[in-house]
Amino acid sequence: MNLTELDTPAALIDAAQMDRNIARMQSRMNALGVRLRPHVKTSKCLAVAQRQREAGAQGITVSTLKEAAQFFDAGFDDILYAVGIAAAKLGPVRALRERGCQLTIVVDSMAAAQAVVADGYHFEVMIEIDTDGHRAGVRPDEDRLITIGRTLHDGGAVLKGVMTHAGASYELNTTQALEAMAEQERSRCVHAAERLRAAGLPCPEVSVGSTPTALSARQLDGVTEVRAGVYVFNDLVMANVGVCGLDEIALSVLATVIGHQTEKGWALTDAGWMAMSRDRGTQAQALDYGYGAVCDASGAPIDGFIVSSANQEHGIVSWRDGAVCPDIAQRLPIGSQLRILPNHACATAAQFPTYAVFDANGGVTPWERFYGW
Amino acid sequence: MNLTELDTPAALIDAAQMDRNIARMQSRMNALGVRLRPHVKTSKCLAVAQRQREAGAQGITVSTLKEAAQFFDAGFDDILYAVGIAAAKLGPVRALRERGCQLTIVVDSMAAAQAVVADGYHFEVMIEIDTDGHRAGVRPDEDRLITIGRTLHDGGAVLKGVMTHAGASYELNTTQALEAMAEQERSRCVHAAERLRAAGLPCPEVSVGSTPTALSARQLDGVTEVRAGVYVFNDLVMANVGVCGLDEIALSVLATVIGHQTEKGWALTDAGWMAMSRDRGTQAQALDYGYGAVCDASGAPIDGFIVSSANQEHGIVSWRDGAVCPDIAQRLPIGSQLRILPNHACATAAQFPTYAVFDANGGVTPWERFYGW
Repeated sequence: MNLTELDTPAALIDAAQMDRNIARMQSRMNALGVRLRPHVKTSKCLAVAQRQREAGAQGITVSTLKEAAQFFDAGFDDILYAVGIAAAKLGPVRALRERGCQLTIVVDSMAAAQAVVADGYHFEVMIEIDTDGHRAGVRPDEDRLITIGRTLHDGGAVLKGVMTHAGASYELNTTQALEAMAEQERSRCVHAAERLRAAGLPCPEVSVGSTPTALSARQLDGVTEVRAGVYVFNDLVMANVGVCGLDEIALSVLATVIGHQTEKGWALTDAGWMAMSRDRGTQAQALDYGYGAVCDASGAPIDGFIVSSANQEHGIVSWRDGAVCPDIAQRLPIGSQLRILPNHACATAAQFPTYAVFDANGGVTPWERFYGW
Repeated sequence: MNLTELDTPAALIDAAQMDRNIARMQSRMNALGVRLRPHVKTSKCLAVAQRQREAGAQGITVSTLKEAAQFFDAGFDDILYAVGIAAAKLGPVRALRERGCQLTIVVDSMAAAQAVVADGYHFEVMIEIDTDGHRAGVRPDEDRLITIGRTLHDGGAVLKGVMTHAGASYELNTTQALEAMAEQERSRCVHAAERLRAAGLPCPEVSVGSTPTALSARQLDGVTEVRAGVYVFNDLVMANVGVCGLDEIALSVLATVIGHQTEKGWALTDAGWMAMSRDRGTQAQALDYGYGAVCDASGAPIDGFIVSSANQEHGIVSWRDGAVCPDIAQRLPIGSQLRILPNHACATAAQFPTYAVFDANGGVTPWERFYGW
């Protein structure tokens, strides 16, 4: 099978570009002297994670216990579940550990630490640090950081270290701001680790990361590992942040033109929001790509065309600036194929049961992915 | 199993409310003297469609050929594929028809009509009419309506009729405007049918519909069937449009509180945008619910709380007005369960492989759904 024979919509992976993305991140981490623990929530695909491991990654990060189970069953045994643990999930975590999975959990509150300790099992635990006000975590200077650490350690849990995710980096778009955020993420997380150690508590690991900060950090002193996910594919949000070019986006959606509204300058495709996802991550960025940037069937951007609107199974392609393309039906004729670059690779990929992975020769291999919880 | 034992996030269906939604729509269509052909893209679940059929629905509408194949294999043989056909999809359509599926396709251009005729098979075809400028379709007064009809009929296709979808109804929120849009959808589609008939072409079927117009139409003279999808569950967008109340939403996402940022008035849950979907359909409406409206574990809305922001597996719950809830950790303690009402049921449901369907006694039954193309 080759690309032109695929049923559309289809999720395409450009294998060569994905490998370049993997190599780029791995070589950066090697140069900075830290381990790379990829976040597999982006691909949810064993074959992708195997490529990351072959390139030098050590361990994986997951966002659900289903990911943990699926990847453990496929031979990944060093797993960080990077979402604050709920007491009701300790049973499944314990079951995976008892099967041999080195599954580490995360807490950021006394309530969660007490629940972990109350279970009586020697869980491996990291404390989540809030280094950017973005989401979860204990701020590095809070008194309760030490209280939580002591509760875990004295209660019989294995206090493995601290972890943070500077999600606020997604809102930046200059080298200077990204480098500053990477340094903030590093320094605040290292500071939290130093406070725990000064209190006599163990803290061997300092885990930080997001794709923008990982690709922007100038030094990672005191950090032991970096987590990043979306870099494996890249996307339009990352292009707007400034950490990749459009030609470094390895994931796209193959679509077919099914109609036109010529007076409006619209081409309609069979890739609506069910295929692209509802993610509008570029809406608040410098360049709004609607539901995606339009490329021709070979992957070359068709300048100025975006998916300006979408229904469930219809995409509306038009010029970004709102002008009416006078010859849309000639430029994008019915039956022609397009590749649409996604705003957010994690969201778009999640809409597909299978990736169509193509190589330089145009041959296509299906790679399965999973979803749900 | 009962609700409190479910792993979270989970997609809950309140079976009694769903049945009331089904009965409400069916009784309206019965009173208006038209058939109801539900759009199964909302649920993608055989058990849901079976309930619709038991209540009186005749035939189904699908948005993908995968839906057509799955439902045909389960005994639904009268199917309208309501997305403009691409030439590359004619082979799979023909294969389903040759297996006995009465699968009807849709065209809205000469190019598509010619491709259908060129295939040489006697497809059953409807012409899509644009009654609201929203998406696809031929406007009822265009010359090419007749040309397309004649091309199909003379070329050997079975011209089954006209169909339209007034998607613009989602942007309305007054009874008067909804009734006017329903009448516009009806009258323009009937007008297109009359033009085809006046030209000597067959046009037995006139198919219209969207949930808002179906629930607002005062008369449907000349219409033979109505298509609607989201009414089966309802959602916050429909509540803002004004065609259901919050207590008529049958789909919700069960979530667990996993942390707080008390200074910000935030509770964090394990239902992020992967569970809710990225749909922000209420963003442009009168009442913006963020990523969903927050209810307690029994389904009663907790006034003023919404999912104000979301990451992949984290939901951030806070007050809608932006004020800081001073006692968030006491009101929504760690480990407590919440039900989140979705902006858009079609998008949220699509994130889950299985529905957890509960009855009045609290018993829970899993209903499978499918996804992809």
